[in-house]
Amino acid sequence: MTNKPFSVSCPLPFGENDTIQLAHGGGGRLMQQLIEHLFLPAFDSAGVRESHDGALLSPKSERLAFTTDSYVIHPLFFPGGDIGKLAVYGTVNDLVMCGARPRYLSAGFILEEGLPIKTLQSVVASMQAAALACGVEIVTGDTKVVDRGKGDGIFINTAGIGEIESPQDIGPSQVRPGDHIILSGDIGRHGIAVMAIREGLEFDTTIESDLAPLCEPVLSLLEAGVEIHCLRDLTRGGLASAVNEIAEAAGICITLDEAAIPVEEQVRGACEILGFDPAYVANEGRFIAFIPEKEVGRALDILHAFPLGKAACLIGVAREKETSEAAVTMKTKIGVERIVDMISGEQLPRIC
Amino acid sequence: MTNKPFSVSCPLPFGENDTIQLAHGGGGRLMQQLIEHLFLPAFDSAGVRESHDGALLSPKSERLAFTTDSYVIHPLFFPGGDIGKLAVYGTVNDLVMCGARPRYLSAGFILEEGLPIKTLQSVVASMQAAALACGVEIVTGDTKVVDRGKGDGIFINTAGIGEIESPQDIGPSQVRPGDHIILSGDIGRHGIAVMAIREGLEFDTTIESDLAPLCEPVLSLLEAGVEIHCLRDLTRGGLASAVNEIAEAAGICITLDEAAIPVEEQVRGACEILGFDPAYVANEGRFIAFIPEKEVGRALDILHAFPLGKAACLIGVAREKETSEAAVTMKTKIGVERIVDMISGEQLPRIC
Repeated sequence: MTNKPFSVSCPLPFGENDTIQLAHGGGGRLMQQLIEHLFLPAFDSAGVRESHDGALLSPKSERLAFTTDSYVIHPLFFPGGDIGKLAVYGTVNDLVMCGARPRYLSAGFILEEGLPIKTLQSVVASMQAAALACGVEIVTGDTKVVDRGKGDGIFINTAGIGEIESPQDIGPSQVRPGDHIILSGDIGRHGIAVMAIREGLEFDTTIESDLAPLCEPVLSLLEAGVEIHCLRDLTRGGLASAVNEIAEAAGICITLDEAAIPVEEQVRGACEILGFDPAYVANEGRFIAFIPEKEVGRALDILHAFPLGKAACLIGVAREKETSEAAVTMKTKIGVERIVDMISGEQLPRIC
Repeated sequence: MTNKPFSVSCPLPFGENDTIQLAHGGGGRLMQQLIEHLFLPAFDSAGVRESHDGALLSPKSERLAFTTDSYVIHPLFFPGGDIGKLAVYGTVNDLVMCGARPRYLSAGFILEEGLPIKTLQSVVASMQAAALACGVEIVTGDTKVVDRGKGDGIFINTAGIGEIESPQDIGPSQVRPGDHIILSGDIGRHGIAVMAIREGLEFDTTIESDLAPLCEPVLSLLEAGVEIHCLRDLTRGGLASAVNEIAEAAGICITLDEAAIPVEEQVRGACEILGFDPAYVANEGRFIAFIPEKEVGRALDILHAFPLGKAACLIGVAREKETSEAAVTMKTKIGVERIVDMISGEQLPRIC
């Protein structure tokens, strides 16, 4: 991608009220038209232009991270973002959590017959802007169309490749007892923003999703040489599920400090009304890092320099696991300790 | 993946009649269970096991191919394959068409609430067997669940990374006037097999899809140093769309010889009854190669050594484009020349 700004507004062969037909996914002339006039102007990379079965890459690093996510969020547009932005930042963030610099994305669209082409244009423009904002190229893609009633407007899968520049091994197996856990900002905004629009809830001001790319703050920590044992973004299942997964994979215990975890006033209020625990609500622009105690001050200083990390704080510690102890506990504001279990399902389905 | 044989039959916490719930995609305990007891035993690679946001790769080549495809085929099971096998071979074949050795796949599942878990198990076992058969590892994945009536059982996206070992540049831009076009086998079987089962058509014997991985024959051509200008597998839109796309991208004309194109008797009969032209019917294990005339004999000798390539033959030539000439023409069996245009849509939707 030459990273030029939006060009999806170039002359299109599509009318104002045109919709997606089954034939748009059929491999014939109509699909060519969709690729040429809608996808190509947005995802203008050499790989996409060559009209080939795949993109050719020459990554600069010998160590790569590879990840994938499908996005089925309902509704497609929500305060603070849309499915297109989510499909780019979500996968970019997974790469960043591997300590990698995101470089290349694939984009697979599953469109429902009858989808307004205007809707697809907005989503694609949003993906283009998001890719530009975090320096990744959408290099290869695919479109399928399913019959009306067999999909839900747009589903997007993105897979991503990132280059690992830092020699550090980052992952649950690197977590050690004594590690301190820092959180990059307030939690619960994405899930509540989606829920509010879905259920028609009204608040004094609109709660916006925290959806954001995490490249800059995390890569800055790595470039500064901060020792990082594990990174995890807090998506489905929220903070509580993320710490439970890591505690289990690393075979350690974690104690969180409830008073230290930032939750915006309106989000807390919405959670109370809806009966949700903010620790389980999804985020799309927040992460936790497990780091040695000696690195806490420096890591927070670095994070505080970014708008995205200005509320970063220490929220807990990892401890040696003793038999039959709960994996994750939380010191509550009234001073007692409660178990933070992994939930069975999810409080809100289809929020990512 | 340690490439051990099927292990999806290990003790499962799922009952005979269990179905997928929204909670299986929620990031909580039920999703963990699905990953641990269904996906992990099948896709047992270090990347998947680490319970991390992505897989870490150290490819051996500096030049990589990267591609993606979503699979929405209906029905999920058809003679000669199923959506799982298709999702592996389809993406593997796209990498092979870039001249790459397929190495790593991602797998993103979009499941519909109510899907029998048994169905998912079969599909996943089939993916495992397919990956094993062509030496690729499924290293990272994702599962989303959509509400009943918002999907169609299972959609799968796979993205793939392959290593390019040959120094040859392969792609439409490399095609030259005078190039000869070889086809690897008979055409039309995949589309007709799917159509027959979908519409309940009966033939003397079951028409089976040609679904197959193309790695061995194509990599053998490359390893033997056969000069190859362009490769293309004949999926959606069939042979006719593939040659049209390449002719357009390369700015050349193509003449095909109808009598040379192998079509199985039963497939030809079904096409006649249904009013289809076999040249437009989808395949999932067939490819064309554009090669210099001097390489034709050697290339066919190599292909004939593989069961998959035993019917390989020369089917046409590329020529200099003259103004206003049709991009693709076919010399018919009765000796006249007809235009082979790209179709507008597709004769059969959702066949891949």
